[in-house]
Amino acid sequence: MKYQSNNFFKMPDGFRGRSSVVVQAWWIVQSMLFATSPQFMYGWRRFLLRAFGAKIGRGVIIRPSVRITYPWKLTVGDYAWIGDDVDLYTLGEIRIGANAVVSQRSYLCTGSHDYQISSFDIYAKPIVIEDEAWVATDVFIAPGVTIGRGAVIGARSTVLEDMPAGMICVGYPAKPIKARVMKK
Amino acid sequence: MKYQSNNFFKMPDGFRGRSSVVVQAWWIVQSMLFATSPQFMYGWRRFLLRAFGAKIGRGVIIRPSVRITYPWKLTVGDYAWIGDDVDLYTLGEIRIGANAVVSQRSYLCTGSHDYQISSFDIYAKPIVIEDEAWVATDVFIAPGVTIGRGAVIGARSTVLEDMPAGMICVGYPAKPIKARVMKK
Amino acid sequence: MKYQSNNFFKMPDGFRGRSSVVVQAWWIVQSMLFATSPQFMYGWRRFLLRAFGAKIGRGVIIRPSVRITYPWKLTVGDYAWIGDDVDLYTLGEIRIGANAVVSQRSYLCTGSHDYQISSFDIYAKPIVIEDEAWVATDVFIAPGVTIGRGAVIGARSTVLEDMPAGMICVGYPAKPIKARVMKK
Repeated sequence: MKYQSNNFFKMPDGFRGRSSVVVQAWWIVQSMLFATSPQFMYGWRRFLLRAFGAKIGRGVIIRPSVRITYPWKLTVGDYAWIGDDVDLYTLGEIRIGANAVVSQRSYLCTGSHDYQISSFDIYAKPIVIEDEAWVATDVFIAPGVTIGRGAVIGARSTVLEDMPAGMICVGYPAKPIKARVMKK
Repeated sequence: MKYQSNNFFKMPDGFRGRSSVVVQAWWIVQSMLFATSPQFMYGWRRFLLRAFGAKIGRGVIIRPSVRITYPWKLTVGDYAWIGDDVDLYTLGEIRIGANAVVSQRSYLCTGSHDYQISSFDIYAKPIVIEDEAWVATDVFIAPGVTIGRGAVIGARSTVLEDMPAGMICVGYPAKPIKARVMKK
Repeated sequence: MKYQSNNFFKMPDGFRGRSSVVVQAWWIVQSMLFATSPQFMYGWRRFLLRAFGAKIGRGVIIRPSVRITYPWKLTVGDYAWIGDDVDLYTLGEIRIGANAVVSQRSYLCTGSHDYQISSFDIYAKPIVIEDEAWVATDVFIAPGVTIGRGAVIGARSTVLEDMPAGMICVGYPAKPIKARVMKK
C-alpha cells in the first residue's frame, strides 16, 4: 500500500486567491515594511493589510511580529487585538470579531492535507473567532473551528473542534469546563 | 452582556516598573547588543542585564536568543542556565535559583488578564524556579507558579499550578508523577 | 542532597561528531547562506547540507527557515518535505524516510540530560521518521522515538514513545487512536 507520494503533489486551481505576483509582493511588503515597523505604528500596518485586501476594522491592534499568509483572506473587527508572534495561517479565511483578543504566540491554522489520498491533497477550512472572545497565549486552533462569542481559550490549549460562546475552555484537546461569569 | 471592550484598556500605574524611556532603551539594547552577541559572550550579556537592574549570579549561562521583557524584574542564581529561545516574560518578577536549568524554547509567562471584568485588566504574578530544578524544553509556566527545588518538568509540559520539590512532573496540565531518585 | 551542579558540566568526547571549526562554519553557512536563500532554491539548500555531510535524497523540499544543528547527523529520503520553522535538533542522528512529511513548526529533539546524576550529563538518542509518515504541524518528538511507516501524528501532539506504522496518533502524550484507512 502507498500512503504518500509527494512528487505528485498539486495545489487546487485558485487556492491562493491571488496571482503569484501578488503573493510574492506581499512577502516582500511583510518582511520589509510590516515586520520592521515600530510597535506604535498600528495605523501603518492596518493600511498595508487593507492595501492587500484585508478587511480591518477601526482601532485594531496588530503587532509587527504577527505573520499573515494571505491578507486578502483576513477579516478583523473593530478594536480587536492580535499579539506578538501570532501566526494567522490564512490558506483559508480567518475572521476575528470585534473586541476579540488573540494573545501572543497563538497559531490559527486553516490548512491541512487529506491523508487518506496518496497524493496528499492540501485543503483549507475557515476559522472564526467571534466577538469578545479571548484566545490566550500559545493556543493552537485547527482548520474549520469556530470560537463562540466571549469564550476564553486557556493558555497553551489545542482546539480541534468548535467551542461554545461564553465558556472557559482548556486542554489538549480543549474542552469547555465552566461558564465565563462576569463580576458585578 | 458585554464580555470585553478593548478600547477602554489601561495598564495600572507603574506596572512596568521603569519609565518608557528605560523600557525602550532596553528594547534597543536587547535587539542591537544582546541578541546579536556571539554565543560564547556570556559575561557581556550578564553585564547588559545587570546594567538594566537584573540580579544575575556568578557563572550564569544565558544564550543570545533568550528574550527578557523587563530585566529589572529578573533574578538568576549562581550557575543557572537559560537555553536558546527561552522567553522570560517578566511583566511580574521571575526568580530562577542557583544551578537551575531552563531549557530551550520554554516560556515563563507572568502576565494575564482578568477576563471577569469587561475592561479586561492586565495583571502579573511572580514565577519562581527554585534551586537545582530543571524546566525541560518547550515548557509553559503560568503566572504565579513556583517550581520546587530539584523538580524536573518534562518536555513540552504546561504548568498551571505549583509543582513540589524533588518530583518529576509532566503533562497538560503538569502533574507530579514520581520522585526524582538520584543514582549512587 | 544535591540534584544538579552545572559548573561541573561536560560534554562526552566527540559528542558533536565534528571539530569546533566545522560546527562554527556550519553556523555561519546556515545563517548567511541557508536561512537567507529564496524559498524556491531547494537545490541550493540540499547542496549546502550535503557539503556538511548530510545524506539528502532526490527532490527533497527543505524550507529556508528549517534549523539543523549538525547536518552530518541528518539523513533524508527521496521526495521528503520539511516545512517552515521545523527544528531538527540533531545532537543524535535523525533519519527521515522517503515521501515522509514533517510539517511547519515541528521539533525533533534528540538530546536530553540524565537528571539522576548531579553532573546532569547530556546524552542523545536517534529519531527515525519512517517512509510516508506525516508529522503534522507543531509536533514534539522526544529522543529515541521511531514513527512507523505511513503513521500520521496529529497537529500539536507530543510524542514520547514509538508510534506504530499506519496509525493515526494524537495527544499529550501521543497515542495511536485509529488506522490510517486510504480511500479507494
